[in-house]
Amino acid sequence: QGCEGDDPTTNDSTSTKSVKIFGYIQPQFDYNFDGGDNKNTFKFKRARLGVRGNIQKDFSYYFMLEASPFIGGDDQEDAYLMDAFISYTKYNWAKVSVGTFKQPFSLDVATPCHSLTTIERSIVADQIVAPQRDFGLMLLGGNNYTKLNYWLAIMNGRGLKMVDNNTKKDIIGRATYKLTGFLTVGGSFRYGYPKLNNNEEERTSFGGELLVELDKLKIQSEFIHDEGAYQPGAGGGCGVDPIDLDGLTSEGAYIMASYNVNEKLQPVFKYEYFDPNTELKNNIDYLERMTLGVNYFFNEKVRFQLNYLANIETVVNVDNDVLLAQMQIKF
Amino acid sequence: QGCEGDDPTTNDSTSTKSVKIFGYIQPQFDYNFDGGDNKNTFKFKRARLGVRGNIQKDFSYYFMLEASPFIGGDDQEDAYLMDAFISYTKYNWAKVSVGTFKQPFSLDVATPCHSLTTIERSIVADQIVAPQRDFGLMLLGGNNYTKLNYWLAIMNGRGLKMVDNNTKKDIIGRATYKLTGFLTVGGSFRYGYPKLNNNEEERTSFGGELLVELDKLKIQSEFIHDEGAYQPGAGGGCGVDPIDLDGLTSEGAYIMASYNVNEKLQPVFKYEYFDPNTELKNNIDYLERMTLGVNYFFNEKVRFQLNYLANIETVVNVDNDVLLAQMQIKF
Amino acid sequence: QGCEGDDPTTNDSTSTKSVKIFGYIQPQFDYNFDGGDNKNTFKFKRARLGVRGNIQKDFSYYFMLEASPFIGGDDQEDAYLMDAFISYTKYNWAKVSVGTFKQPFSLDVATPCHSLTTIERSIVADQIVAPQRDFGLMLLGGNNYTKLNYWLAIMNGRGLKMVDNNTKKDIIGRATYKLTGFLTVGGSFRYGYPKLNNNEEERTSFGGELLVELDKLKIQSEFIHDEGAYQPGAGGGCGVDPIDLDGLTSEGAYIMASYNVNEKLQPVFKYEYFDPNTELKNNIDYLERMTLGVNYFFNEKVRFQLNYLANIETVVNVDNDVLLAQMQIKF
Repeated sequence: QGCEGDDPTTNDSTSTKSVKIFGYIQPQFDYNFDGGDNKNTFKFKRARLGVRGNIQKDFSYYFMLEASPFIGGDDQEDAYLMDAFISYTKYNWAKVSVGTFKQPFSLDVATPCHSLTTIERSIVADQIVAPQRDFGLMLLGGNNYTKLNYWLAIMNGRGLKMVDNNTKKDIIGRATYKLTGFLTVGGSFRYGYPKLNNNEEERTSFGGELLVELDKLKIQSEFIHDEGAYQPGAGGGCGVDPIDLDGLTSEGAYIMASYNVNEKLQPVFKYEYFDPNTELKNNIDYLERMTLGVNYFFNEKVRFQLNYLANIETVVNVDNDVLLAQMQIKF
Repeated sequence: QGCEGDDPTTNDSTSTKSVKIFGYIQPQFDYNFDGGDNKNTFKFKRARLGVRGNIQKDFSYYFMLEASPFIGGDDQEDAYLMDAFISYTKYNWAKVSVGTFKQPFSLDVATPCHSLTTIERSIVADQIVAPQRDFGLMLLGGNNYTKLNYWLAIMNGRGLKMVDNNTKKDIIGRATYKLTGFLTVGGSFRYGYPKLNNNEEERTSFGGELLVELDKLKIQSEFIHDEGAYQPGAGGGCGVDPIDLDGLTSEGAYIMASYNVNEKLQPVFKYEYFDPNTELKNNIDYLERMTLGVNYFFNEKVRFQLNYLANIETVVNVDNDVLLAQMQIKF
Repeated sequence: QGCEGDDPTTNDSTSTKSVKIFGYIQPQFDYNFDGGDNKNTFKFKRARLGVRGNIQKDFSYYFMLEASPFIGGDDQEDAYLMDAFISYTKYNWAKVSVGTFKQPFSLDVATPCHSLTTIERSIVADQIVAPQRDFGLMLLGGNNYTKLNYWLAIMNGRGLKMVDNNTKKDIIGRATYKLTGFLTVGGSFRYGYPKLNNNEEERTSFGGELLVELDKLKIQSEFIHDEGAYQPGAGGGCGVDPIDLDGLTSEGAYIMASYNVNEKLQPVFKYEYFDPNTELKNNIDYLERMTLGVNYFFNEKVRFQLNYLANIETVVNVDNDVLLAQMQIKF
């Protein structure tokens, strides 16, 4: 009487198939230097549980729930479907995925959420690559052993949990190329129609990225530019308050350097800025941030991250630095 | 400190038990021939993840979450418990289940959601077998090898996520009989009290079904009749907008034919109608639909379905045909 | 494109790791002797699904979803994250956990939800140990083989799904000691700041517990005392309507005796009271209850519980006795 047939011989017989369970939890303590009571709290950054696997040789699936009550918007307290897709992987240069997944834009966004070098993604990626996740169809090619990798997606442009709000689709793409063993460059673009019931007003974004991996040193940098229409409420990165960028030209960049002192210890430094309106001088919404952090890997599945985020105001100074401490376990 | 005891030797020792993980995802693209902008969207039809298994010989359990944000009502964006029940299966002719499961009414409703021959169930089943899922206790007998199968349930009558809204319970039953190797007939009934805080107003439904399986040809047909009280908001089939049938006599039917050209290719045709009020002539709510489809099975776990739904209005013509394309992977 | 890297060799290769899936469902039938229509319903008490496991020798994780729509508040219909924590277990006398878990207060609360001897916890524990679950950091020591066990936690004090509502944290602790093979005594305390944006008004609670296990007889008793500020909406025990205790001195106790007639049959009797305001005589909110029950264990994973709850009013008599019947299957 469930959604499975009730034939005992076909259902619960041999389970030679292998469903792989995976996930991770990120309990975190936030401490705000807000010049007052210094708001602080225990919380989860992310708490994810999923399954994935292969069906015969050419198909695979991925199904992941996000259970943290602090990601996905203000009224998002429950577990919800985050990434879920079917992939056809027969041809390495023309793999196809359909379902929900991250928009293929920016190295920072593409980095798995459990492998970020700092606790927070860059402001520019969180603000401009919105919606971060979406419904669509993607063509992709390459793998970790090829010099070229590319991703090209046609997506609703509205994000998770909602059907498309207009009849146009968005096109998003990214490509990376390993120039040498230690240097990878890449670029991303998006061309879309973000507004509700509006097939006219467009949005165009592009970005460039650079990744240097020299022995124990890693330097990563990106620049992202965005202009045109914007739909508030489309949802940005993980738990970030989106800034309304409608009609504005915005841009930002970051540079991040980390060094593996040994197998366990990895200090990291990031400098970044985000200008939501490049045409306005002395904009109080202009953001600049330095992140000083250290990652400690107890083992390959367990990591501790400590980050100090110095938010720099260039117009009016505000007490808003933050200290974040996060434990992560992957399974 | 969790809900398990903290004895390390009894908890995480041998996992000889076998919990079977199962589920499926159905990414889908809808295209509406609406005479205007032709609304279209990527979405999920269903996205389900569950576990099931046997406990010793006589007990089994089933626990399934639905994670698609587009099933379960307008404000249903998160993962929720769909079917979950405990079964006692010692006696084949008197098995017992308790928990949530589909109301045992109609072959179309009983067909597992990943095994439907067309993407949508019949309108009459979606509208009249509402709530489709409910809390209750069921007595059932037979299996795939017996000529007779029966299901008899006492249920709240209010559907998932809610306690009963009156103090009467609903009785729902279905029986099928294999007359010959290729012909199965069956019937269903329901007698209930759907209305809020109302132990007086009744609802009575009955249905008849016919299944012909002749080599590669399958023909399936049902007729369902319903009359009496109705509680709006009880929730119909998967994602369907329920029509308020309170006080009306409604009925409908469908006939569906499919043919297995070979192991992979299966064309399907369905004709159906639903009359929400049999006493009203030229009712603009009267619905007639033809579905033309083709199913392609990449393998036994991966299926592609393409359906064209021609909605026929007999009173006033409306542009409302729909093209649906669905990928499905089971695991 | 999911949250995992896309390296096929590192992802889906060997799954030598062992993720343990666990959970249980508790379908239940409630019948109220309310002097009127006798409200009754099928429902779930709890429906939980989780994973847990060890990472190398010293770390473990626990991740559990609650999917019952009837636990967690009025608008809690969907599956949500209940307990999720990372533990460092290298040193038996100084284990550390971080994440969400039950407040370490009271034997009744500490008892796993699938191992309660009666269907309901005691009123005093449900009302005073609120929030029952919370975010925090815990130091704990001992195990089932040591005479002493202790738990000491620093927690938000606000419960699940919310960041802390003030900048002070709560301290909660419990210790138990096996005096002899059959007698265990224990005590709990909590010192916290429950109110919203209020770092001044405190709440202090303490409790004492006694557990006698004499062959087939088990006697368990607790007394809990509480005074000070209280934040309505902090959420009490599983599905209980919290009484506003702000500014009041409250206390209550229970004594419960059960006897294992044989491996399968266990009758149980519990007497309890809860006085929400010890300074008010003839308080109509004063509660007294006798629970008469019987537990039947089909096997170690499948249990049936039948409980009659006689609610006794000392001031004005009300028809509010309840009969509860629950099936439970663990996996």
